[in-house]
Amino acid sequence: MTDKPRSELDAGRERAIDVAESIIDERGASALNLGEVATRLGLPLVAMARWFENQDALLEAIAGRWFRPKIAIMEEVVASDLPPRRKMYEFYARRFTAIRDSYRADPVRLRTYADIGNQHYEAVRSYVDLGDHYLCEIIAEAMADGHFPGLSIDEALSLINQMLAAYVNIALMVQVMDRLTEDKLARIVDAVFAGLSAEDRGAKGVTGLRAA
Amino acid sequence: MTDKPRSELDAGRERAIDVAESIIDERGASALNLGEVATRLGLPLVAMARWFENQDALLEAIAGRWFRPKIAIMEEVVASDLPPRRKMYEFYARRFTAIRDSYRADPVRLRTYADIGNQHYEAVRSYVDLGDHYLCEIIAEAMADGHFPGLSIDEALSLINQMLAAYVNIALMVQVMDRLTEDKLARIVDAVFAGLSAEDRGAKGVTGLRAA
Repeated sequence: MTDKPRSELDAGRERAIDVAESIIDERGASALNLGEVATRLGLPLVAMARWFENQDALLEAIAGRWFRPKIAIMEEVVASDLPPRRKMYEFYARRFTAIRDSYRADPVRLRTYADIGNQHYEAVRSYVDLGDHYLCEIIAEAMADGHFPGLSIDEALSLINQMLAAYVNIALMVQVMDRLTEDKLARIVDAVFAGLSAEDRGAKGVTGLRAA
Repeated sequence: MTDKPRSELDAGRERAIDVAESIIDERGASALNLGEVATRLGLPLVAMARWFENQDALLEAIAGRWFRPKIAIMEEVVASDLPPRRKMYEFYARRFTAIRDSYRADPVRLRTYADIGNQHYEAVRSYVDLGDHYLCEIIAEAMADGHFPGLSIDEALSLINQMLAAYVNIALMVQVMDRLTEDKLARIVDAVFAGLSAEDRGAKGVTGLRAA
């Protein structure tokens, strides 16, 4: 009995998000507001309150739609039975190629969404946190195989996030897109697995410099 | 005989850049134009033409002043007789700590300059190219010691630029500043030296995936 009203509510909400995206595509993120969405839907402004408490809730809904397929990719990779190194590669590669496809289809649109994400980071944060959560699972599996000796999961997470920023941070990715390839990503993941540790490398390494 | 007019010209030019920086600090980059600089200097607009052909030339001069100490750091590190791994660490660490100092002194100012750099990338490009040039010298020294087997200098350059982006790309750096440390930088440089190669890692590695 509760299904029908629920899905009608969802359908209206999805339609409002469609309209909000059209406004962004046509006139940029600064033109987006609940009043404009209501006007285009032929609804009074108060009707919008059923779906979005305020402008931030609308932006969160847009972010939610944008991240949904990326979350599906992460869940699929983490649930797979690939070895951890290959998992880490796929964890980045599948999202990177999906975002690169969006970029090739419409570079201006991707840049606009990257700007919105930077300006409304609170709408993005929960997805970044979820990405960290899944990456920690892969790191823990790699550690169980003896990788990243001496590092805590949090230390490894931070280092890997930094080393692979170009393949996951949208703002950086669009800046350097033409220099990013799956081949380079594979080499960086291999360097992470072959080289990342807290071991003392003696006179040869630079890690010891900081401890000295 | 040509020295005095030359240095008077330079002194006037430097004073104009001072004024331009004050305008940016007080009212943001969008308020900057040659007319406003001339007004503040009490000069007619035509007088500015001696120093700056146009607005882009003024922005290039501001970028030039910003990058000068970073270029000095790069030259000093490359000319030193440190071993290549340590050189690469210092190449990034000394610029990173200098920029972090600016950030701690005035985070809003550094963000403003990062935005200007993104919006006027042509003013920044020659410095990025110079950084690549010096990094290639360090990479060539490392290769002479047997590092990065199978990679060309250009391939190694691109991979290292990507792996260390957080410590050199100002826009990314200000985004994640509170998670960047010299200790993590040292671990990433060690991972670059221990792990970056074009060697076939067999079933263990992911690099082969792309070749398969």
